[in-house]
Amino acid sequence: HGFHRGRSAHQRLRQNGLPQSFFNSLVLPVQLFEKESCTYTYLLADKSTKEAVIIDPVLETLDRDVKLVKELGLSLKFAVNTHCHADHITSTGLMKKQVDGLKSAISKFSGAAADIKLSEGDEIKFGKFHLSVRETPGHTDGCITLVLCDQSMAFTGDALLIRGCGRTDFQQGSSTKLYQSVHEKILSLPKECLLYPAHDYLGQTVSTVGEELKFNPRLTKSLEEFEKIMANLNLDRPKKMDVAVPANLLCGVHGL
Amino acid sequence: HGFHRGRSAHQRLRQNGLPQSFFNSLVLPVQLFEKESCTYTYLLADKSTKEAVIIDPVLETLDRDVKLVKELGLSLKFAVNTHCHADHITSTGLMKKQVDGLKSAISKFSGAAADIKLSEGDEIKFGKFHLSVRETPGHTDGCITLVLCDQSMAFTGDALLIRGCGRTDFQQGSSTKLYQSVHEKILSLPKECLLYPAHDYLGQTVSTVGEELKFNPRLTKSLEEFEKIMANLNLDRPKKMDVAVPANLLCGVHGL
Repeated sequence: HGFHRGRSAHQRLRQNGLPQSFFNSLVLPVQLFEKESCTYTYLLADKSTKEAVIIDPVLETLDRDVKLVKELGLSLKFAVNTHCHADHITSTGLMKKQVDGLKSAISKFSGAAADIKLSEGDEIKFGKFHLSVRETPGHTDGCITLVLCDQSMAFTGDALLIRGCGRTDFQQGSSTKLYQSVHEKILSLPKECLLYPAHDYLGQTVSTVGEELKFNPRLTKSLEEFEKIMANLNLDRPKKMDVAVPANLLCGVHGL
Repeated sequence: HGFHRGRSAHQRLRQNGLPQSFFNSLVLPVQLFEKESCTYTYLLADKSTKEAVIIDPVLETLDRDVKLVKELGLSLKFAVNTHCHADHITSTGLMKKQVDGLKSAISKFSGAAADIKLSEGDEIKFGKFHLSVRETPGHTDGCITLVLCDQSMAFTGDALLIRGCGRTDFQQGSSTKLYQSVHEKILSLPKECLLYPAHDYLGQTVSTVGEELKFNPRLTKSLEEFEKIMANLNLDRPKKMDVAVPANLLCGVHGL
């Protein structure tokens, strides 16, 4: 049962009449990983127009990312940071020097320099697609979540992690705000919506709204319980914080 | 240009009429990462029937993977290894003890024990989908590539890596065979076909046939050049090889 033998070697597989993937109408939603800080960088592109957006690029992997953009023949329009990161330095500033016409973007509430200061409802266009900006403060005041136009996927930064969430004990963090942001702006998306976080420490790459509504060990709790959990995490300070935050306020080029 | 302001807060994003993602008709093609050996494990499931297949699960991440299978309410039918790995121990044997009815599968040319010995053209069914087996020897004699029924994605094991390929200097490795396997069985798939390898050491997660046809630094070369490259890699022996290979010949449970 469930296992069939006997198709001859080299036989062409039949097309089974399933609809063309929406993903295939983009180049790819390419997910890229930076090992040291366990950061995910995302590259999204319209395959026909070649216009592209990169989300949360990291200094250490600048060369890899720029090489891929060039190989794929993309016209990279925007480098967006979901917030002013404390754990790694963004490559946005240096990437602008290597990619003509690239514009940096970050929340107007982040306090960071960028070509474009984003706020709620703004749309970041690439070809016939766009990412919509949802303000999701709590980890920091300037955290945003980027939602693809058909709500098939969302890039949640450090607001919502897979079965977790960003810490709220520095950089204007507020567990009360984070709880509200995640419930109102992220977990209200369609249950099938794919959630792509800025980090994962366990090798997980993607989740869905439906999964997090059921299985997020923190955000399935009441606000009161959530606040208590977040107040008692006792996490170490990020090693790179004193270098990363000042650098990221200036697109990562401070002191380089 | 390319950036639009002025959508009001909380405004529902419009649906833009794009076709339903094929991916969304599966639960997800979940990609999972094991840091120590840089191995990718894949979980594929039919969302409606909940039948699922796991590819290349790793001993160290057994608990994570079994937990996810249970959370998603999946009926895991098959645990398939793309070959007898030399760099990590499979969790297939132990997973069978935790998941009722799970069957292990591996190439009949691998020399390894398993419930099902796969060969060219076999189909591994999960719900209304299946993975088709293509024999792609060269890294080892028992390497297979698994191709999803609509040819939208393929799981290439160590035959083809992103911008690279598996080594061919032990375990019956043959650069001549590998070159032929990759060109005949993988790079002959549609250019849009997503390629998911068993490993990546640079944080890359996915490629396409089109990309590898253009940018793979080894496999875009002639057979003669490829053989020369592969003969001169001078790689260290995998640290875990003497433990992993005997264990993997017995579904990972040898000596545990």
